[in-house]
Amino acid sequence: MAEKKKAASVKGSAPVAGTKKVDGCKYVYFFGDKNTEGDASMRNELGGKGANLAEMCRLGLPVPAGFTITTDCCTAYFAGNCTMPKTLKVEVDAALAKVEAVMGRKYGDPDNPLLLSCRSGARQSMPGMMDTVLNIGLSSLTIPGLIKKTNNERFVWDSYRRLIMMYADVVMEKAEGIEPMDGKGIRKILDEILDQYKYIKDYKSDTDLTADDLKVLAGAFKRKIEEVLGVEFPDDPVKQLWGSIGAVFKSWVGAKAVSYRRIEGIPDEWGTAVNVQAMVFGNMGDTSATGVAFTRNPATGENLFFGEWLINAQGEDVVAGIRTPLPLNDETKTDQNKHMHSMEDLMPKTYKELDAIRTKLEKHYKDMQDIEFTVEDKKLYMLQCRTGKRGGKAAINMALDMFDEGLIDEKTAVLRVQPNQVLEFLLPIIEPKIEAKQPYLVKGLPAGPGAATGEIVFTAQDAVQASRLGKKVILVREETSPDDVEGMRAAVGILTSRGGMTSHAALVARGWGKSCIVGADAMVIDASNKTMKVGNRTFREGDVLTINGSKGVVYEGELPLVAPSASGDYDRFLRYMSLVDKYRTMGVRANADSPADATKAREFGAEGIGLFRTEHMFYGEGSAKPLFLLRKMILCTTPADRTAVLKELFPFMKTDIKNTMAVMEGYPVTVRLLDPPLHEFLPHSQLGRLELAKALNIAEDEVRKRVDAVEESNPMMGHRGVRLSVTYPEVTEFQARAILEAAAELIKDGKNVTPEIMVPLTCDVSELAYVKSIIEKVHEEVVRRFDLKELKYTVGTMIEIPRAAILADQMAGVAEFFSFGTNDLTQMTFGFSRDDIGSFMNGYLDKRLLPADPFQTIDKNGVGALIEMATQKGRSVRKNLKVGICGEQGGDPASVEFCFAQGLTYVSCSPFRVPVARVASAQAAIKAMGK
Amino acid sequence: MAEKKKAASVKGSAPVAGTKKVDGCKYVYFFGDKNTEGDASMRNELGGKGANLAEMCRLGLPVPAGFTITTDCCTAYFAGNCTMPKTLKVEVDAALAKVEAVMGRKYGDPDNPLLLSCRSGARQSMPGMMDTVLNIGLSSLTIPGLIKKTNNERFVWDSYRRLIMMYADVVMEKAEGIEPMDGKGIRKILDEILDQYKYIKDYKSDTDLTADDLKVLAGAFKRKIEEVLGVEFPDDPVKQLWGSIGAVFKSWVGAKAVSYRRIEGIPDEWGTAVNVQAMVFGNMGDTSATGVAFTRNPATGENLFFGEWLINAQGEDVVAGIRTPLPLNDETKTDQNKHMHSMEDLMPKTYKELDAIRTKLEKHYKDMQDIEFTVEDKKLYMLQCRTGKRGGKAAINMALDMFDEGLIDEKTAVLRVQPNQVLEFLLPIIEPKIEAKQPYLVKGLPAGPGAATGEIVFTAQDAVQASRLGKKVILVREETSPDDVEGMRAAVGILTSRGGMTSHAALVARGWGKSCIVGADAMVIDASNKTMKVGNRTFREGDVLTINGSKGVVYEGELPLVAPSASGDYDRFLRYMSLVDKYRTMGVRANADSPADATKAREFGAEGIGLFRTEHMFYGEGSAKPLFLLRKMILCTTPADRTAVLKELFPFMKTDIKNTMAVMEGYPVTVRLLDPPLHEFLPHSQLGRLELAKALNIAEDEVRKRVDAVEESNPMMGHRGVRLSVTYPEVTEFQARAILEAAAELIKDGKNVTPEIMVPLTCDVSELAYVKSIIEKVHEEVVRRFDLKELKYTVGTMIEIPRAAILADQMAGVAEFFSFGTNDLTQMTFGFSRDDIGSFMNGYLDKRLLPADPFQTIDKNGVGALIEMATQKGRSVRKNLKVGICGEQGGDPASVEFCFAQGLTYVSCSPFRVPVARVASAQAAIKAMGK
Repeated sequence: MAEKKKAASVKGSAPVAGTKKVDGCKYVYFFGDKNTEGDASMRNELGGKGANLAEMCRLGLPVPAGFTITTDCCTAYFAGNCTMPKTLKVEVDAALAKVEAVMGRKYGDPDNPLLLSCRSGARQSMPGMMDTVLNIGLSSLTIPGLIKKTNNERFVWDSYRRLIMMYADVVMEKAEGIEPMDGKGIRKILDEILDQYKYIKDYKSDTDLTADDLKVLAGAFKRKIEEVLGVEFPDDPVKQLWGSIGAVFKSWVGAKAVSYRRIEGIPDEWGTAVNVQAMVFGNMGDTSATGVAFTRNPATGENLFFGEWLINAQGEDVVAGIRTPLPLNDETKTDQNKHMHSMEDLMPKTYKELDAIRTKLEKHYKDMQDIEFTVEDKKLYMLQCRTGKRGGKAAINMALDMFDEGLIDEKTAVLRVQPNQVLEFLLPIIEPKIEAKQPYLVKGLPAGPGAATGEIVFTAQDAVQASRLGKKVILVREETSPDDVEGMRAAVGILTSRGGMTSHAALVARGWGKSCIVGADAMVIDASNKTMKVGNRTFREGDVLTINGSKGVVYEGELPLVAPSASGDYDRFLRYMSLVDKYRTMGVRANADSPADATKAREFGAEGIGLFRTEHMFYGEGSAKPLFLLRKMILCTTPADRTAVLKELFPFMKTDIKNTMAVMEGYPVTVRLLDPPLHEFLPHSQLGRLELAKALNIAEDEVRKRVDAVEESNPMMGHRGVRLSVTYPEVTEFQARAILEAAAELIKDGKNVTPEIMVPLTCDVSELAYVKSIIEKVHEEVVRRFDLKELKYTVGTMIEIPRAAILADQMAGVAEFFSFGTNDLTQMTFGFSRDDIGSFMNGYLDKRLLPADPFQTIDKNGVGALIEMATQKGRSVRKNLKVGICGEQGGDPASVEFCFAQGLTYVSCSPFRVPVARVASAQAAIKAMGK
Repeated sequence: MAEKKKAASVKGSAPVAGTKKVDGCKYVYFFGDKNTEGDASMRNELGGKGANLAEMCRLGLPVPAGFTITTDCCTAYFAGNCTMPKTLKVEVDAALAKVEAVMGRKYGDPDNPLLLSCRSGARQSMPGMMDTVLNIGLSSLTIPGLIKKTNNERFVWDSYRRLIMMYADVVMEKAEGIEPMDGKGIRKILDEILDQYKYIKDYKSDTDLTADDLKVLAGAFKRKIEEVLGVEFPDDPVKQLWGSIGAVFKSWVGAKAVSYRRIEGIPDEWGTAVNVQAMVFGNMGDTSATGVAFTRNPATGENLFFGEWLINAQGEDVVAGIRTPLPLNDETKTDQNKHMHSMEDLMPKTYKELDAIRTKLEKHYKDMQDIEFTVEDKKLYMLQCRTGKRGGKAAINMALDMFDEGLIDEKTAVLRVQPNQVLEFLLPIIEPKIEAKQPYLVKGLPAGPGAATGEIVFTAQDAVQASRLGKKVILVREETSPDDVEGMRAAVGILTSRGGMTSHAALVARGWGKSCIVGADAMVIDASNKTMKVGNRTFREGDVLTINGSKGVVYEGELPLVAPSASGDYDRFLRYMSLVDKYRTMGVRANADSPADATKAREFGAEGIGLFRTEHMFYGEGSAKPLFLLRKMILCTTPADRTAVLKELFPFMKTDIKNTMAVMEGYPVTVRLLDPPLHEFLPHSQLGRLELAKALNIAEDEVRKRVDAVEESNPMMGHRGVRLSVTYPEVTEFQARAILEAAAELIKDGKNVTPEIMVPLTCDVSELAYVKSIIEKVHEEVVRRFDLKELKYTVGTMIEIPRAAILADQMAGVAEFFSFGTNDLTQMTFGFSRDDIGSFMNGYLDKRLLPADPFQTIDKNGVGALIEMATQKGRSVRKNLKVGICGEQGGDPASVEFCFAQGLTYVSCSPFRVPVARVASAQAAIKAMGK
């Protein structure tokens, strides 16, 4: 049984960077009375939990004494190959002595033993991702003393069996890197023993277990542990303490924590602090209790004290959901719990005390706090306090309320909402009346807000392909992995049968504000056959579902979606956004390819279109005719034939552009010339070929030959972008004419329009000059033919090839504006084909060789260096050069901040992300003011 | 008939850059007596011909007077949209007056008319690429006067018909951009009239034409010209002169000239000068003559006056080969012409005069000169003098001789040989005894030196593919285009049925020193069916031919090739190379993948291997077993399976590397880890799949699935290079072990070896650090197992991804050396897929949007900027960082010079190009000394 292998991974997986030796530093900070050494500003050293425990002590709040071992110590621990720094023991002993003094108990003392908890605490909260050990210090020596002291034999044995279970799991198994046997960890084995015992004794609940039962179980647990892990459960409190400290450190590099950090972008080298604190007990009888609370309602933002509590319980019981928690006070009771007793009823004095602390904390922190407390025999203790997480609506409501209350200033109010949170106000919802009547197909966890409806697909690749064809798809997977990110992006919604609220799908979807339901485990997915079953019903690729990601409910078929502006809080959103725009200095435009998108973009506050893709007309609805003409054109072999087809295509081009510019009247519209590799448009079916063969009056085989001739080894670096203009100048001429005639017609109608013509994929100024000269010629013609006094327009270029960035000073000699195409720029700068990273990106992220997928988060070091270089070089030649970004990162808050720092004129993103970019841009400006 | 369209291209195709207005500059320089204004140093302004005409005047040599219109004037002409600068006329008139004064004749004078020639002359010689008009000034008015003056009616009418033919062609048709009718130019039409007339009169030769005949023909020509071109032949000498000047300017942007410049890398903005010079006549009777000569033998380098001449002829007759020219003197007579009279015999006095000029010119120019002369009624005139072109053997012989003669110093001797010319000493030849007995299949022009034998292929793509499989192929084409360059590079020899010595194939092959025969017009090629016919014999793809590119002869089947070191001049080559190495400071290594290549490389003076591709063992001969194992490994799904296959593969890896290192003992060997996308290795035939299915014990369909799974959209930017190490660290571990064990075994044998392990395709220092840590671990193991005191090795990286160049300072923190992979770096920097540029590169070159194909010539502005940045950043962190280049440009002289300027430690190229790189490197060093 002791054959379990030690996993080789633990030692090797220490943080990569922090290899500085920091022996000699102060590693331990005491808290608990007026001698408290830390404070809230020391979050980096003490972690969030440690810093706030110290701060609460400084505020005079009742906090059980303890000490925090710093994050630096964690770094030193890994640097030393998982050994504690030499000076640590002395510091811990000294701090422990102070704790003993304040608490009036002694650690390991047989008569009056102090018990300790040992909790992680990183700079940034990583809820549930790292480990905790409670009730440390119970041993054959201290148990009798504690029983005597508390006169509560059951409580002590219950605490002991909890210690054994946690310790065996966290310290003895996980921290040692032992692989679970048959996929079963020691925790599970012990749980099974517990369940079996309860079954034999016919107990319904853990509370039925008597002191004697628990004593028996503790003995059985210890025997099993030795059998399975080959090591004895330590009876020495000192050994328990140091084992727990090491285990918390090691949980920093546990798989769960690592993957959470990757998704949240938390650096590995930060490390975690360890908080060692005197145990207080909410489970010592009916005068004891434990609870969690928020100083305001985290779901709505309402200024009401909101929380849950349990009598005679330990903290984990509230979280674990074994017993139903009670409401904190009367005013926040709901229909479900209005019959229950509140703390306000049952412990009015303690509640008052707690409510006073609530007020004190909000005044002090000037923000909503998430607190944990324990009442040990009527005495209130504060165990945790941190800024509370909140939804988007709550965030806006709180920010505006606190501003109105005079608690915070305007800038702070703007900063209080995470940019992505505004998506909650923008995402479509299912028409409420219809949804109310609709039976649901299956339920899961509400992982990403908003509703979506679309055809189901079962692979990320299918999602990408279908979306390229203009289809709306819902990606259905058992669970998602970084491999699927492209497909997740392409889908309108994500639905998984496994995984919880912190699963990959949930974290990614939430980041994007994309509708997502996870853990809908009534679905049985067969990805290889592209089907899923719910009960005895089978759904296939292409079947339509509608999901409500805010509720976690899946419906069959297509339900009508409506804009959320119908909902009541929308005016609060608008008020917040007007504050945002007061501080925003960088422009925000939208990527929009149709009048409908443009209308949406205006509605969301876009100040122009940063990217109108002319090729959009060849995708999706209504594209059949233009696409057919385009195919015909591609297969023409002479400029004359091409010109003939272009004439047919011309009205389609012009109409699309004209209607979009009309919607955007008064704002600039950047129209990009044809960009994709031509092969993307060609038919791969026999039917498609036959149709073309007929139209071109040639044999199908000849069509096949010509289609094959267009195929490329590396299309991403092939015949596309401006290269098409060089080969087929007549195509560019027609595009320029479509844009400029559309503008001319609008000007004739008295409209104010300024097209910006954007040349994609340039690598040399000569290409740009060549295309510009074509456009200039067309412009002259159009002005003459429409008899206009003036037709203002500009010609600019995408900067998406490294060489264009390197030679940006030359480019700016001709280009009147730049727009960074960060998708392609990232591809070329890394030499990563975005379509092909699936096979190796995971390896890079798993081995922490890259901090993040650079297609999701702008790579500041490499791609960013080119952006900086190009902006500076461009402006060295053309002082007021307009510089924007229109890659997908244009709507990513971190990237918006980076663009602001580079002095970009605007960012451009999809219409829905325009408000996100507006918020991010305003926040960047406020932060740059030094707040 | 006058419907011929004006091509729109002429106006638009003016040089792009030189748009500075230079009116007010001096545009005209007189030469002819002591008032000569130019000299040899003014090559940039006056062109080579103009500068040397002026210099010869200054030396007191007999040069017919004339004047040169500068290259700046050409630039101004195009900048002004093909109009002459305003000040030009006054300057030309003044210079013409001087010419008239010196020659004692007057232009357009009816009694004593001066005739003029009008010739192009660029900075760098572009033989035959631009146009010339002779006998300008003949008109109805001046013809009678000249007849009277010369008393030679036939001569005058012959000159007149020549003027008409040239003028109609060069000035009236080509310079006006008129498209030839039915593919037939006016020149051809007039030639046909001439031939028809001779046929009717039953004349054998032009010399049979009488004065009356020529008069009749002149009339017919003029009528035809008006009929075809719609314009009259101008009878006004002034009109003739200005027409000719403009035509010579325009010939600078003629198709021939443009394509020549592209291939030779001559900038478009240089422009050409125009030399207007008094005509002298070698065709005035038996006391007149004309000839061309070299001051030494241009084929062998022998110090003998060498040339050809014709009595009673004009210069073009010698070149055109209508009459067989006579030898210049007795000592250079050959078996073929020993019966003919030399100039030394027939015109001893004039020959002596010419011989004295020869001596004077060599003393003055200190180099072999190529001269043109004319004797007009016993009076010798020098018409041209320029440094003579010579073959490689001649270049080396002359350089060494002139050094021995004290004419030049050592550095100059080194500079006198073009780097590529040394290839003549290295290229294989057909075993002479066997070749002597072999009947030839077909003959063509000897366009690229050396012999080659291989299977024939008919497309560039096939050449590339076959060469990847390790096959030696000869690329057979009707003619080649820039599209074919990759295939030409991949082939061992090139054979075309069309084209002359300046055809694309000839120019490219000569540049590379690659065996090439052009214009073998007895071959009939059917590229689409991949066959060729010679007479009634058909050859198919895969049939073997042997070509002797030095002679232009094609043989059937494979003939044995031998090293040229057998030939007599090899010691001269060695002596020259020892001079070269005396001045060379930058290292030269070879790219070599086998012991055989390494042996060759050492022989050619490589100081190490800069690139050993581990994947070489999977290509070509002997690769069947390792390739099969590699395929098996790629399709394994678990690390354990992979490791098992790697064990089988290990001995192959080690042996190859060990034997190569043994050959290179004492020199560094850079071994690159596996680089190509895995898909390249997988079988696409059913047979291959079945074999694998059997070995892996899975279904063929499963093999197909796994093979498909490895396929990528853009493999060039996909799962390859270091990314393979990240995904499959076990593969890297095995490679590292193969390299280090190979070294260990050699060290045990007392050998001195230093492997350099090179990581390809890195974009971040973390990847490199990861791979380095794997290598370090293996190194420790190997040192321990072999019980070595020391096993020196280094780990470095290719810099071939833009991001690696941008972050080179970080890279250098881990990398102990850099090697620029300029092929990939060029791909990513431009976003050009080398496999796909065929579809658009021509457009870029035709429209002059790029100066050259950046895969042939390093792009100094973009790629070069990254090389410079990376070198500087790298050395800012690691002062003595070894920096090399191992892309294909490593053996390109211009790139070698660039690398020298960047301070690179070494260049690495294919073994045959090592001597070329040595010469280029030495020359760069000498030039940098300011020699």
